[in-house]
Amino acid sequence: MSNFVLASKSPRRRALLAAVGLEPRIIPADIDERKLPHELPIPYALRVASHKAIASDPGELSVVLGADTIVALDGETLGKADDEQHAEEMLLRLAGRTHVVHTAIALRWRRPGRDEMLSDVVSTEVRFRAFSQEEARRYIKTGDPMDKAGAYGIQGDGGALVAEIRGSYTNVVGLPLEETLRLLRMTGVVA
Amino acid sequence: MSNFVLASKSPRRRALLAAVGLEPRIIPADIDERKLPHELPIPYALRVASHKAIASDPGELSVVLGADTIVALDGETLGKADDEQHAEEMLLRLAGRTHVVHTAIALRWRRPGRDEMLSDVVSTEVRFRAFSQEEARRYIKTGDPMDKAGAYGIQGDGGALVAEIRGSYTNVVGLPLEETLRLLRMTGVVA
Repeated sequence: MSNFVLASKSPRRRALLAAVGLEPRIIPADIDERKLPHELPIPYALRVASHKAIASDPGELSVVLGADTIVALDGETLGKADDEQHAEEMLLRLAGRTHVVHTAIALRWRRPGRDEMLSDVVSTEVRFRAFSQEEARRYIKTGDPMDKAGAYGIQGDGGALVAEIRGSYTNVVGLPLEETLRLLRMTGVVA
Repeated sequence: MSNFVLASKSPRRRALLAAVGLEPRIIPADIDERKLPHELPIPYALRVASHKAIASDPGELSVVLGADTIVALDGETLGKADDEQHAEEMLLRLAGRTHVVHTAIALRWRRPGRDEMLSDVVSTEVRFRAFSQEEARRYIKTGDPMDKAGAYGIQGDGGALVAEIRGSYTNVVGLPLEETLRLLRMTGVVA
């Protein structure tokens, strides 16, 4: 099965797949990622991941992986920051507290006469240590927060904000690898 | 308090401290890190961390941070790999199972008329997903495993091996930042 496509331009997701020997074709999906009014975190992430897998359509005989990562705090969804001011607000809300990272994965699996969608959501608790506004600003200056849900990346300098994790680590990076491989095995992309 | 010293040449420990605005002088300690016969994991890590903090001696009025990270599996200690063959053996033992990462930190705090040692040990459970010998070899070829306890680094490609974490994340990177800052606050190095 060679027609494996990743519907994401995230270099972190690509790197995780490369680490297990997978080099999908990259066809980013250009969709509207905005949350609907009153949409809950998990349904929102699942909807966006599935939408990405459908929008990035390489034709028949394909397996397309869409993924969406969000941060939830007090039942509210934090996506990507609009600007540095917004990133600072998010980081200071997260400081000293525990949030949940949800990543939804969706595999659209097209074969002759069949068109299926396999999906999953993985949730990880992340506790940030207490930190100052000065530290949040120093981190924002690195540029790392700007394209990431919750305005941080655990692999770069953002890792220094993270005190504790309960659950999948690669989920916090942006793609729960173990669960993704489980779905890919069903489609035959992975042996 | 400017005479803050890190008794480690690990770039990962230095990067974590830099992320919180700390730039200690680096004076690596050249000590014998071998385990004693029958020495248990936590006492071993504590002994080595304290020894590093003592061996790297910049003189009076100093705060010296020593740290030692080990991986424990079934009560046995896995240190750094001797060579690629040894790294492969370690990784295949860890595959599909949960191990514990212990990092001991020791702060030697010298003031006129006082010479104190503050220390702590932080333990994090890490579960690896199942992976093949081929994947272990591909990871070893990146060179990442060779200078790290348990033959992996979570921040690089080794993160793709990690399915689940319970506990401190920065501890797995090599320096439990929250606990280190708590000790540094006692000495006045951190406000």
